Amino acid sequence: MGKGRLEAFTDGVIAIIITIMVLEIKTPPGDDLAALQSELPIFLAYALSYINVGIFWNNHHHMLHASARVDGKVLWANLFVLFWLSLIPFVIRWMDETGIEPLPTASYGVVLAMASIGYVWLQAALVACNGAGAPLATAVGRDLKGKISLALYILAIPLAFVRPWIAIVLYVANAMTWFVPDRRIESLEKP
Amino acid sequence: MGKGRLEAFTDGVIAIIITIMVLEIKTPPGDDLAALQSELPIFLAYALSYINVGIFWNNHHHMLHASARVDGKVLWANLFVLFWLSLIPFVIRWMDETGIEPLPTASYGVVLAMASIGYVWLQAALVACNGAGAPLATAVGRDLKGKISLALYILAIPLAFVRPWIAIVLYVANAMTWFVPDRRIESLEKP
Amino acid sequence: MGKGRLEAFTDGVIAIIITIMVLEIKTPPGDDLAALQSELPIFLAYALSYINVGIFWNNHHHMLHASARVDGKVLWANLFVLFWLSLIPFVIRWMDETGIEPLPTASYGVVLAMASIGYVWLQAALVACNGAGAPLATAVGRDLKGKISLALYILAIPLAFVRPWIAIVLYVANAMTWFVPDRRIESLEKP
Amino acid sequence: MGKGRLEAFTDGVIAIIITIMVLEIKTPPGDDLAALQSELPIFLAYALSYINVGIFWNNHHHMLHASARVDGKVLWANLFVLFWLSLIPFVIRWMDETGIEPLPTASYGVVLAMASIGYVWLQAALVACNGAGAPLATAVGRDLKGKISLALYILAIPLAFVRPWIAIVLYVANAMTWFVPDRRIESLEKP
Repeated sequence: MGKGRLEAFTDGVIAIIITIMVLEIKTPPGDDLAALQSELPIFLAYALSYINVGIFWNNHHHMLHASARVDGKVLWANLFVLFWLSLIPFVIRWMDETGIEPLPTASYGVVLAMASIGYVWLQAALVACNGAGAPLATAVGRDLKGKISLALYILAIPLAFVRPWIAIVLYVANAMTWFVPDRRIESLEKP
Repeated sequence: MGKGRLEAFTDGVIAIIITIMVLEIKTPPGDDLAALQSELPIFLAYALSYINVGIFWNNHHHMLHASARVDGKVLWANLFVLFWLSLIPFVIRWMDETGIEPLPTASYGVVLAMASIGYVWLQAALVACNGAGAPLATAVGRDLKGKISLALYILAIPLAFVRPWIAIVLYVANAMTWFVPDRRIESLEKP
Repeated sequence: MGKGRLEAFTDGVIAIIITIMVLEIKTPPGDDLAALQSELPIFLAYALSYINVGIFWNNHHHMLHASARVDGKVLWANLFVLFWLSLIPFVIRWMDETGIEPLPTASYGVVLAMASIGYVWLQAALVACNGAGAPLATAVGRDLKGKISLALYILAIPLAFVRPWIAIVLYVANAMTWFVPDRRIESLEKP
Repeated sequence: MGKGRLEAFTDGVIAIIITIMVLEIKTPPGDDLAALQSELPIFLAYALSYINVGIFWNNHHHMLHASARVDGKVLWANLFVLFWLSLIPFVIRWMDETGIEPLPTASYGVVLAMASIGYVWLQAALVACNGAGAPLATAVGRDLKGKISLALYILAIPLAFVRPWIAIVLYVANAMTWFVPDRRIESLEKP
């Protein structure tokens, strides 16, 4: 089964998620700086989510590039990740409407944690499909970085009920560590 | 006529349907668990529809993979299926606004039944276009599973007027049986 | 310059136009048949527009298939057609909100006429780019059908101010004549 | 790393931006000419933005066509441009709601200036990735046109606070100069 259509479908969903998030931003309630400022928190949440989705897309790009084959399990693991990513605009809208409150902030962590679990599942499905001796398997290795990232998201969920901003700091820190694409996989692509 | 563009177009429409469904979900009317809970039924309807559309996409992926050619009749059969799939977000929104009432629940069944009829038509158009001796024709055979699935959707429509939840059980059961991609076609792809 | 990206971009825009039209349909104002019936006219307008856009996509598919090259002029002619097609959901929404009144009904004709003019321009740009001796040029010929179609749309605009339903009959009749893909071009693809 | 997926993703995002802008246009508040006229300014803003995004897409098309390779830096530069382009519908909606006021009009310039900076960054990343001796590097040269365009957008921002229409004239003039694709790069494609 070719991987081209899986890539094209993923690109389509990611492109739509990234673009409809901007539909969620309410226009400022006036034409002065104060009105613009009141939209700043949600604008930053949008920018953070854009980076998060961009990180996923970049890593997905590298991971599929290092894979030769996909199968039915990979298709479903991929759909699982996309399901959770598609909930990001919904959670941001909720945070926008209620303010930075504990439950909506924790929900953002739940959505990102589920997407991370899906990514780990997708990675495992790709390794299983391509064989333990394939370049992808060697490159991924124990995937310590992915596991730490997932642990941080899970940790952020209860902390959002202590202080929402602690969770937000964890989300931002997590995005920062993933900003660079996976060097283990990228090194495969060098001749 | 190449099948690449048909696949790309279908992927685009499916990607959009799947992603705009989340735009339909209203944000919870507060920031506590009770508010989140009030959104649970529609969230489950979204998840079920996501799985339904995902099933269609997976089977479409397999069926096109086993086809060598497409023609004008295939294009229109495909557009017919996509038309009914694109109504899914609309029907879910209606169920969300009215509650799980008989007519909206039955309408969901009508939309899925019409999409199933379209899928059968698409399959027939592909077999006709690729020839009765082609691998696709052998793999599809009498397509008992597809016909049972369609019969269940048609059965669910009147039952929604007896008790809406009976129809919903049928929708969920139907999705479950289609969860695995069509083994008859998938077996073609094994060497 | 390759034609692949032009096709992919067009497919993306068409997929979105077709799918967001359903976002325009207001849900019925109740859960009974009377409520559903009140949405019937707009539902039929959606179905007609879906067919119109589907016709464009099918013909575009055939025309590009018969072309070997594209250039900058083709890109802009294509963007011009897509611009007018993207206004279709807007005009339908307007007709939905005001009822079948003269000006909105005429506007629908203006949008379709402009898209037809764009299609003629696109065809001419493709013929110019591929050369007058190329298969596309021979197949297109004088394009009588395209010119009659455009004339009917232009005729429908003033008639919408006499009686809106006359314009609507012309729109439906026009769609019917285009339902079959262009046999002149399709015949090229037969060996 | 192949450039095909970068192109496909960009096409998807651009297709969505172009198409959702039309969702931003409010329908006229009646069915007569006066109602239609009241929507004229926002319609023209939509047409201008459509042309702006179309220009970007055309130039992107040419620039990628002249590139042989992409890397991680190119992916992020591209995502940066798309981020700012995706804010265009948001800014237009704001201008639509507040009227042609100084701050919203200046914001439109900020978004276009940031997109231009991103485009310059993307160009530099592509030249760095493909090598200073590659055809792209020679074709781009000092890119005087790109720098003048960026300077005009930056100039328009403070002028929007003097008189909004001065900024709008600059936006339109800027679009006009970019209407034709980059001849330096296009000339590369001639044999």
